[in-house]
Amino acid sequence: MPPTKASSPPPSERTRVTRLPERGHYDRETVYAILDAGLICHVGYVIDGQPFVTPTSYWREGDRLYWHGSAASRMLRTLATEIPACVTVTHLDGLVLARSGFHHSINYRSVMALGAASLVTDLDEKSAALQAFVDRVVPGRWNQVRPTTAQELKATSVLHMDLNEVSAKIRTGPPKDDEEDYALPIWAGVVPLSIAIGKPEPDPRLTQDIPVPANLSAIRLGK
Amino acid sequence: MPPTKASSPPPSERTRVTRLPERGHYDRETVYAILDAGLICHVGYVIDGQPFVTPTSYWREGDRLYWHGSAASRMLRTLATEIPACVTVTHLDGLVLARSGFHHSINYRSVMALGAASLVTDLDEKSAALQAFVDRVVPGRWNQVRPTTAQELKATSVLHMDLNEVSAKIRTGPPKDDEEDYALPIWAGVVPLSIAIGKPEPDPRLTQDIPVPANLSAIRLGK
Repeated sequence: MPPTKASSPPPSERTRVTRLPERGHYDRETVYAILDAGLICHVGYVIDGQPFVTPTSYWREGDRLYWHGSAASRMLRTLATEIPACVTVTHLDGLVLARSGFHHSINYRSVMALGAASLVTDLDEKSAALQAFVDRVVPGRWNQVRPTTAQELKATSVLHMDLNEVSAKIRTGPPKDDEEDYALPIWAGVVPLSIAIGKPEPDPRLTQDIPVPANLSAIRLGK
Repeated sequence: MPPTKASSPPPSERTRVTRLPERGHYDRETVYAILDAGLICHVGYVIDGQPFVTPTSYWREGDRLYWHGSAASRMLRTLATEIPACVTVTHLDGLVLARSGFHHSINYRSVMALGAASLVTDLDEKSAALQAFVDRVVPGRWNQVRPTTAQELKATSVLHMDLNEVSAKIRTGPPKDDEEDYALPIWAGVVPLSIAIGKPEPDPRLTQDIPVPANLSAIRLGK
């Protein structure tokens, strides 16, 4: 099982936000809220001196981050050797249009986690983790689908990484212009961005007239 | 100036999509369409053996990718030494809900580019690149804002990376279930995801009654 929730660790020298330090946050509540709003992370790892950044879905339980994929995946096989990794999650919240090009910016929330991942080898833990993932995306979905087989469980690798060295960066609010620019007759403000969840599109191969499950309306992403 | 458009390079051994090869694309038209729809990339680089993945805005001109930031940024200063880098761009297009947990998936478009970045040192090229960036986000914005000063240009670092080693991965369409599962009375399909562009929020410090510029409606993201 994942470890119980620990107190917030201080920022390490590697995760401290040094430039624009007011954007840095290190408390678990802030970091975990950003992680729990996301679906896709970008995982960094190194092979022969070359960094690779792979997008993949992830989820959090307690103080652990999980991600998964085919047991044949190069990314998962590489990371399973417990080499240094970096997982970054970013939410795009808005375009910040200032009165000068220089002060244009982006409103965002991001988390960077450093550590080494390990394979989840216990089959019960692996199955529980996968259920947590499916239910994180669509609450209650796990019990609506055909049960996972032993063969499928074997073909799936699940990694976890302890969230010990983490930091969040957040920019929010209107532009910050040079004081003398505020008088200029230039429109400035924020264009908000969010994830739009569209109308479910039934699989053309649905063999019966099956209604869209009510729990699809419980999907939450980005917030 | 950026190099003129070159023919599509073949995938390298490092960028070839080996698992689910039908998802791999290597032609510049496909790769560039994905890049041009995005605003945020995730840049991977290595410091003392530790990979870091930093989200940052980017843009493309010809066969070059550009990104920028404060001249004081650790990410930019590190990458300016022309070490190996990886830039990944990902668009989230949908949740793919299958009849089994195992076949749940995500519709996405992503690009991975490997290479080394270099500083743009020529001031005219730097200024032109920054204009291209602002106008990529909001067409025509550059000429609506206060001109950039020499000091601002100096405080900004711009990097470029030639797009020589790139690949795209795309998943699209309905779930792919096991043949015998199609008869099950389980709803399956896709929940589409996209970027919602909200109503512009004027800066509370607008000193005059300045209308929202018409070109904000030309903002395109994700598609």
